[in-house]
Formats: sequence, C-alpha cells, structure tokens
Amino acid sequence: MNILFTDATVLPMTAAAGEPQTFTGSLGISGNRIEFVSASAADAEAFRAAHPDARTIDCRGKLLMPGLINTHCHAAMTLQRSYADDIALMEWLNDYIWPFEARQTPDDVALGMTLGIVEMLLGGVTSFVDMYYFEDRGVEVVRRTGIRAVLGCNYFDTNVEEVFPQMERALELAAGCDRIRIAAAPHAPYTVSPENMVRGKEFCRQRGMLFMTHAAETVDEARIVRERFGKSPVQYLDGLGVLDDRTIAAHCVHLDEADIATLAARQVVVSHNPQSNMKISSGVAPIERLREAGALVTVATDGPCSNNDLDLFEELRTAAFLQKSATGNPLALPACEALKLATVNGARAMGYAAGELGVLKAGALADVIVVDLQKPHLQPIHDPVSNLVYCAKASDVETVVVDGELLVEERRVRGIDLPKLFADVAEAVKRIKR
Amino acid sequence: MNILFTDATVLPMTAAAGEPQTFTGSLGISGNRIEFVSASAADAEAFRAAHPDARTIDCRGKLLMPGLINTHCHAAMTLQRSYADDIALMEWLNDYIWPFEARQTPDDVALGMTLGIVEMLLGGVTSFVDMYYFEDRGVEVVRRTGIRAVLGCNYFDTNVEEVFPQMERALELAAGCDRIRIAAAPHAPYTVSPENMVRGKEFCRQRGMLFMTHAAETVDEARIVRERFGKSPVQYLDGLGVLDDRTIAAHCVHLDEADIATLAARQVVVSHNPQSNMKISSGVAPIERLREAGALVTVATDGPCSNNDLDLFEELRTAAFLQKSATGNPLALPACEALKLATVNGARAMGYAAGELGVLKAGALADVIVVDLQKPHLQPIHDPVSNLVYCAKASDVETVVVDGELLVEERRVRGIDLPKLFADVAEAVKRIKR
Repeated sequence: MNILFTDATVLPMTAAAGEPQTFTGSLGISGNRIEFVSASAADAEAFRAAHPDARTIDCRGKLLMPGLINTHCHAAMTLQRSYADDIALMEWLNDYIWPFEARQTPDDVALGMTLGIVEMLLGGVTSFVDMYYFEDRGVEVVRRTGIRAVLGCNYFDTNVEEVFPQMERALELAAGCDRIRIAAAPHAPYTVSPENMVRGKEFCRQRGMLFMTHAAETVDEARIVRERFGKSPVQYLDGLGVLDDRTIAAHCVHLDEADIATLAARQVVVSHNPQSNMKISSGVAPIERLREAGALVTVATDGPCSNNDLDLFEELRTAAFLQKSATGNPLALPACEALKLATVNGARAMGYAAGELGVLKAGALADVIVVDLQKPHLQPIHDPVSNLVYCAKASDVETVVVDGELLVEERRVRGIDLPKLFADVAEAVKRIKR
Repeated sequence: MNILFTDATVLPMTAAAGEPQTFTGSLGISGNRIEFVSASAADAEAFRAAHPDARTIDCRGKLLMPGLINTHCHAAMTLQRSYADDIALMEWLNDYIWPFEARQTPDDVALGMTLGIVEMLLGGVTSFVDMYYFEDRGVEVVRRTGIRAVLGCNYFDTNVEEVFPQMERALELAAGCDRIRIAAAPHAPYTVSPENMVRGKEFCRQRGMLFMTHAAETVDEARIVRERFGKSPVQYLDGLGVLDDRTIAAHCVHLDEADIATLAARQVVVSHNPQSNMKISSGVAPIERLREAGALVTVATDGPCSNNDLDLFEELRTAAFLQKSATGNPLALPACEALKLATVNGARAMGYAAGELGVLKAGALADVIVVDLQKPHLQPIHDPVSNLVYCAKASDVETVVVDGELLVEERRVRGIDLPKLFADVAEAVKRIKR
C-alpha cells in the first residue's frame, strides 16, 4: 500500500539534541518502507505523481512520529489484568497467578495476546518484545494482527524440554515473515540453571536470534544469586558469557557501579519498566547512571498484571518523572531523551540496524503513528516533544501504520471486532477461574 | 434536569473496605441532587413514573461513580503548559514563567482557566480547588462552564493589597452560586509574612471561608523557614494558628513525625501532588504515614506547568505507585484507598459535610461520571476498582454531570467550541510571548 501523509507536524527522531525536533511537512510510504520525509511541497507532489493510487491522509493539527517500541511485555497476561492486586506476593502467585496459568490453554494465551496487541496498537505501539509461553501460537497472532514483534520463548529449568520444541516450531512458523523474530527467554538468573541459561544463548548464537531474561529485578533475586554464585546477577550472567548486544535484560534495578559498567561495555539492551517496578516495590533502576555510562536503555510496560496496562506513552512519562524524583535532579531524563528510549533505542533492542526502524527517514521501515494534537490536554503547543512526553495519552493516537500496512484508522483496529473480542475474553476468563 | 442512569456498574464509594465495592443498578437525579441509587429495577421504575420527563442514559458496560475532586491546581497555567520544561528552576522562573505571567491580562487568565476546566471535565473531574490570581474572573468562568470549584485568591506580601479587593469582588460575584466557594490563598510560608498569613486566615474565619497554602513542598522552603523562624513549615503555620479542618496544605512533602501528628490532630486537608513532586524533584510525600496517623489526605494535579496535564485518573495511579515504590511495600495505598483520596476525602477538602459530595447516595449532590469500560485496556473486568485505578484513562470518561447538569455527553463539553478555544489560546500565547 502507498500512503501519503500531508501537512503534519513531523517528529522524525533524527535531529540532534538542542536542534529543532519537528518541522511541518509530509511523508510518503511505498510498500513497507518510507520513501520520503520532507518539508517541501514539491516532494509530496513528486510522490503523488509517482504513486497516483496512494492513499492521502491529511495531518493538519496532527503529529507524525515513529511508532513506539515496547521492549518487555507479557502480552497474553491481559487475561489476568487486575485479577489480584494489592495482595502479598506469595499469596498472589500461589492462590491466583499460578493456578490461573495452569488452567490456561494455548487458545487462551493466543486470545490474551490478541487483546494485548489491540491495546498496544491503539496506544501507538508498533513493535513489542514478548516473553511468555506458547509463543508458537504468538506467531499466528502477530501475523494476523500485523504488529511487529520479537517473541521470546520463556523457560524455566522445569519446562525447558517442552519450550525448546515450541521455539523450533515458532521459528518455522515465523520463517518468511520479516516482522517477526523469535528469541530464547530464560526466566531469570535465580530460576534457570547456568547450563540452561547458556544452552539458550548458544541456541540463539547459532541462529542469529535475540536472547532475553529478567535480571536484577528485586532485592530477593540479587540475594539468592549472590548466595548461590557469589556474584551479582549481572556479573553472574556476564561470567556465563550471555551478555552482548543481542541480549535484552529486563528491569536492571539492583545494580552496582561494576554492573553498570558491564552492561554498558557489553552493549546489553536494558529494558526499563518503571510502572511495574513501582507497583510491585522492586526499587528504582539507575537509568541516568546507565545512560551516562553509555548503556543502551529502552522502556517497556512489563505485563498487564504489574502495571496494569500496556500504555507506553504513560510509561515514558513515568520513566522521566521517576528519574527526576529518584535523582533529585529535575533535569534528569528530559523529554527528548525519554522519547528516544521508546523509538531509536527500542529499534536497536529489536535487532534492527541504526536508521532502519524507530525513525522517520527515507529507506526506514514504515512504522508510523499519527497523534491528534487537537485535544485540550495537548494545547497550547509551545513544544511538541514536551507535550508528547508529559501530556499525550495512548488515546490521542489516531492512525497506526506497521510495515506499510494501515492497522489503525480513526482508532479502529483492522480486522478486530471489539465486542466479540471482549465477549471471548470474558468467557475464557470465566472458564479458567471456575 | 432529571436524569436516570440505568444498568450501570455502580461504584458508590460508600462500601466498607473488604466489602463488594460495586453492584449493577441505576441512579436517578432530580434537580441538583441524587434521588436514589439502587440495584432494584422497581426503584428505577418508580423514578421514571415520578419524573416522566427524565432523560434516560443507558449504562450497560459502563461504570457510574462520583466525579473526581482535584484539591490543588492552577488551572489558568494551561497557557504555560510545556512552555519551559527540563531547564533549571531559576532560569525557568526568571526567563519564562514570571515574564509570561507579567504580560498576561485578566482575559488571558480567564481563557487559560476555561481550557483547564474543559480538560478536567473531559477527564471526569467535577470539582477543583484553584489557586491563582484574578480569581474574580475565575468566578465567571466557573459559572459559565458549570464545574464546581473552590477559588483560592493567591497572594504574596508584594501584592496582598491588590488581591484582597479581588477576593471581596470574587465573594460578591459568587454569591448565590452554591457551586462556587472563595478562599484566601497565601502563597507559602517563605513568601508571605506571618502577619499576612494570619490576616488571610482571620478574613476566612470571619466569613466561614476555606484557606489554603503551599506547605513543606521543597527542601529549600523547609530550610528557609527554619532559618527564619526556627521551626518546620508545619510547626510554623501551627504556631500562627492557621491550621484547622478548613485549611488545605498543598504538597506536605518534607515532614517529620511531629509535623505528621500536627496535621492529623488539626485535621488539616493534605493535598498530595505526586506527579508535580516527581517532575520537579521535590521529594516523596509520606502519604502512608499521614494516613496511618489519621490525617485527611486528598490528591491533586498541581498546575499544568509541573505535571503537565490535569488528569486525575493518572494522578491517582501515580499516587498509588509512588507510595508502593517509596515505602517498599506493594500493599501500600491500595486501589480502593487511592480512589477515596479523589472522592470522599476530596469532598471534605472542599468543605462539604460527609455524605453530601463525593459519594453516590440519596440526597448527595449530583456530581456523577460515567466511565466506558468497553475498552481494550479495561478488559477483562476481574475487579472494577483495580481497573479504574491501575488502568483507566481520562479519555474513558464519557458522561459528566455536575450539580445535576449534564456538562459532558459523548465526550463533548456543553457550550464549548473546541477549535475556537484552541485558536483563542494560540493567539493569546503568541501575543504574550512576543
């Protein structure tokens, strides 16, 4: 499909800090790539002449930007959203989450992921990194909905022999679909043995796959890993040789200076989950120190059980607020840098080369969103980037394009019957809880 | 106007903790009061028979709850929203905020407040406590828009002689409009002399008015007050005799145990502004310790310069997250308690008697909102209160009634032409910045 967006406030995420971040202009998509981004009316005319069939979308009063990238998520856990809040951790796991998960079928997981993807698309998330089980079913859901994804096959020592065949199947199912990448996802340093951790990374290295794990999320995890291996979670993972620029480490809350230096030196992708860390009292990740050290920091929602939504605009805002609060420096994580976590840096987390995703420029993949600025909470517009980070809501996203396909238009998701989806979800949840 | 809401998930905010918080039922409004709230279809029929002219609003799949109450705000500062973020405090004040405010006319302030009120109504805020200048003009805006308000006439030592006549005029203009209350609002313990602080409180006591001030917001304020008066801000205010249950103290971040005990003993209204406190690195208010001590805690957005929006749903969520994060206890400020800050407690802050506002019960003032639950981020519904606090967005509010008047219907604000409002705001801002 060819699409021409005209008269937009364009935020390409390619300007240097201190330079103007936006301009008024147009953007053309042909196939699954951005063909041009320009302030010149002549460029728009040339695109129209070359693609007379192009769909034109008038963006007066609207902002055009790269789609947001959510680098850590358990999308199918929408089914457990607000199922058991404000109760103690062990009661939560023993009496609610684990029994619920034990009764879920692969169909339920696919349904939950569908709901999560619909929520994310409506909030301007065009790419996500998932970590759950039955990711072979996830491939089908991602193919059907059209979103871009890295699907991490989550395993523990207890189920590793079941998950590896699922991962092989997911790889086969995803073959030929460039939007989908499969990853190995050992749960955490304290739940997966060194052997199984390394086995996953080796599997990934042989196939050029991404690798991910939770790391340094809680005080308890750090204590257990230190008792067992005499090291911090990060040093332990580094000692196993699993940390590199194809590894996503989710959370990274409890770090010392050596851990920060290691994460930066190895160019590990740090996935920061501020709302989840706050809600379950995990602590505050040292994001400013990681950024200063040159680490690659991204932002994520985590699962809907500990958040409880998949709203990356809100997460961006919380990331900025939390660093300002925790460091005592109101200049910490400024708006423009916060936005980079969810675009430019997120693209690198997904394994894309610089300039290929997460920016609006000629030749980049066409993952583009339109944000309606004609809302009381976004007016007046002194600074569009500040407005986006400090005021914009998921619900301000009007149009979403992924890989050149128009997936959301006037806030309706392509191919999704919402009342039917909600009814199916309600029925599944009722059956599982019975 | 008579209104009948049918088949709603009703959240009256009257159930005890641990009891079911919601039921399916209907609610009838006659004049400016709630006539009935009930699970019984017969009650709805009786209302319909008694008021055959009543407008019926079908609430299937929707939640009905008391309107939210924002207890500290500078609504007119919408004009400076995102004007100067991520820069140092003194540069922000000297080069941006103060010159901007110096060039604002009373008309500009009225316009900014209109925009703020429109934003709040669309986010389910039915009452707000304001603190700014030209509040005599605020009376006119509140009358026209239909929202409920306490308008605090903000003064410093430098302009007290101008503000007191404005306050007298505001009182005259608000006479006969029960929705509007006027308050004296000395800026803060470090910017207003003891004499002028007491003068404001005396003025209020003589007229039965509310009184408000910023208090214990920053480390610098606490230091200055201690240097000048040898006491903490709270003890200093208490020594002046201005702390009682008709005083709103905004922020209350830097408190010791004695301060907490004093605020609780005097039944001062604590207005907690978590997003503002985070954004400008003020610190974390000890809300859990205040609640344990029996203090009356409420929640607020602060002004759109330090937030940057007036979204109380988001603020509620941040309040809960921040207490969980800061205390290390994931059970801190649970959803149901967070919701009380913005409803039941907010009503007491506004000077209303228990049961008169902030709850859905027969005889209470009819400030009611409808939240559409048929959204991907609000499904499934295991627990409507958790969903509201941890997932709901301002944009999920569909219908808003204040004082029995239907002010928002299908997300359109009565009497407001949004494109014209935005154009007027853009023009005012352009003129002021020139």
